Amino acid sequence: MEKWRIENFYIYLLMKANFEGGLRMRIAIDAMGGDFAPKEIVLGAVEGAMEYGVEAILVGDEKQIYTYLKDCPKTELIKVRHASEVIEMGESPSKGVRKKKDASIVVSAQLVGEGEADAMVSAGNTGAAVAACLFKIGRIPGVERPAVATLWPGIYGTVIMLDAGANKDCKPEFLLQFALMGDLLAKTAYNIEKPKIGLLNIGEESTKGNDLTLKAYKLLSKADINFIGNVEGTELLFNKANVVVCDGFTGNMVLKTGEGVANFIVTLLKQEAVKIWSDKNFSEEFKTIMSKAQKRLDYTEHGGAPLVGINGICIITHGRAIAKTIKNAIKMAMEFVKSGVVKEISCKFHVE
Amino acid sequence: MEKWRIENFYIYLLMKANFEGGLRMRIAIDAMGGDFAPKEIVLGAVEGAMEYGVEAILVGDEKQIYTYLKDCPKTELIKVRHASEVIEMGESPSKGVRKKKDASIVVSAQLVGEGEADAMVSAGNTGAAVAACLFKIGRIPGVERPAVATLWPGIYGTVIMLDAGANKDCKPEFLLQFALMGDLLAKTAYNIEKPKIGLLNIGEESTKGNDLTLKAYKLLSKADINFIGNVEGTELLFNKANVVVCDGFTGNMVLKTGEGVANFIVTLLKQEAVKIWSDKNFSEEFKTIMSKAQKRLDYTEHGGAPLVGINGICIITHGRAIAKTIKNAIKMAMEFVKSGVVKEISCKFHVE
Repeated sequence: MEKWRIENFYIYLLMKANFEGGLRMRIAIDAMGGDFAPKEIVLGAVEGAMEYGVEAILVGDEKQIYTYLKDCPKTELIKVRHASEVIEMGESPSKGVRKKKDASIVVSAQLVGEGEADAMVSAGNTGAAVAACLFKIGRIPGVERPAVATLWPGIYGTVIMLDAGANKDCKPEFLLQFALMGDLLAKTAYNIEKPKIGLLNIGEESTKGNDLTLKAYKLLSKADINFIGNVEGTELLFNKANVVVCDGFTGNMVLKTGEGVANFIVTLLKQEAVKIWSDKNFSEEFKTIMSKAQKRLDYTEHGGAPLVGINGICIITHGRAIAKTIKNAIKMAMEFVKSGVVKEISCKFHVE
Repeated sequence: MEKWRIENFYIYLLMKANFEGGLRMRIAIDAMGGDFAPKEIVLGAVEGAMEYGVEAILVGDEKQIYTYLKDCPKTELIKVRHASEVIEMGESPSKGVRKKKDASIVVSAQLVGEGEADAMVSAGNTGAAVAACLFKIGRIPGVERPAVATLWPGIYGTVIMLDAGANKDCKPEFLLQFALMGDLLAKTAYNIEKPKIGLLNIGEESTKGNDLTLKAYKLLSKADINFIGNVEGTELLFNKANVVVCDGFTGNMVLKTGEGVANFIVTLLKQEAVKIWSDKNFSEEFKTIMSKAQKRLDYTEHGGAPLVGINGICIITHGRAIAKTIKNAIKMAMEFVKSGVVKEISCKFHVE
């Protein structure tokens, strides 16, 4: 994340130059996905497009999209692509994608698959995003299962964890592939020369774990990566590894538990603070500390989670995404396109 | 937890009366288990025995035990049972228990199995505690797998989560049994009339989850319990359910992640606080808030985790247990003996 902030101006200049030279990156945005769609998605897309000089293709119900675009600054960077259907959050992803061929999330993936967009962003149903990408963009040859890579704001910098939810039941071989993909992601998108790769597990020793992690440990030990062994939940955020692999059920569980515990502690602290300062007249110092810490944890500050292993770039962002989240997801999508990670994974898996 | 605090004096009186009447509860304490053994274990056992009027049988190397007992107040409530071996933290539980028949953890379980103690407490290797209990105390007939029940300090009171690590790979049927045992634990030891039982999962809907949770959901729906559906990691500490079931790998992962995220947030807050008050000259209010919140999260304040499904009571406490932890674990052991939970589970599983 930090790196991107620093490079922000540089990226802008580069994109601007490309744009002025007739080349510009095109990002398909699922305008109908997320709790605050389409309003926040539309606003974020406009902000992102203008700030980074990319073309944002808003995909969804054009009538609703134009309603919100009306109040935005006019820019030729915004395009609208009508899509008549929406896959809801509770809907079965595979059935939804099969049935609703004109759903905004499916059409967004189709634009990437057909080369009309360089990347896509969605705050919709994660399962549907994965299914739509598999259906319309396809896997990189050799990749068995694409994975959602989540970026944790560790104490000393970003920690990449995959899979965070695309594959609920995994074979040990999938975890090996996640490690190989995570390794390339860390190298290309984060400029980490020799990423430390860990296996998320319930003990430090190689003899600890369930059937899946015990077998995966053996495979990872033999792989051509810098495997540092097991990483426990206690160590995840303290940057023991740059990349941590796990099955999608465990990854999603850990992610949600982390969110829950963070909220729990903030609640505890506020309960104690109210005992000191009644009527929530918290001291300025306490308010500053809390808001700065919460900012570091805030999902709206980060872009989202890339889906790796597909033949293109898809950023899956938080279901509660607001405009700022979408703007940041656009920046992340640009970064991943620029990083060439898809090409790197293709080469790696083609050779092996 | 709260309940115990209130009942503290009552328990003491009851125990004292029993003790004076010639009956006293006997608790076997594995003196060699944990990072600070035997010193902290011995000190905690003496404190606990004297405070609650129970007999503490310290099991382990007698020479070392007597060294630390020398400095303690003299009391006839302390007994020592020599055991010449120790199962180390990194050691294979099953091999360790098979080979080291005179290990402190094995002998502690043996005392319970042979009726020489009413309960045991250990801060040693969790796997070894489970293996020793299975070997020397045995399962309650009908119980397929005993489970470690962890007690989370939820915002509105204790949340029981099981299994927290005894069974790394589970069948759906095991989760059903965990739910039945957790239900009885909540009723007997926590006086909750109709405990809300949840399934730890990665989505609210019944269609969410991995193969295990999808199948377990169906079994739980049909069981004679107050099943309220899936509980996500975000909701665990906000008391959506009184009892939450999961496989031991997931439970242990969630437990350690919770610990890690809590440490992470405390670190973040202190990093921000140092920016305001240099040289760690934090305001008194900030220090009070932090220490009170940390106290609510502190494992040394809580006793430990009961192993349910065995034909006796075993409290597995934190590997970093200090004297206070052991004292609290003794109190918890007494409470569980008194609750009659073993008898309740025996009846339930005998009938079914």
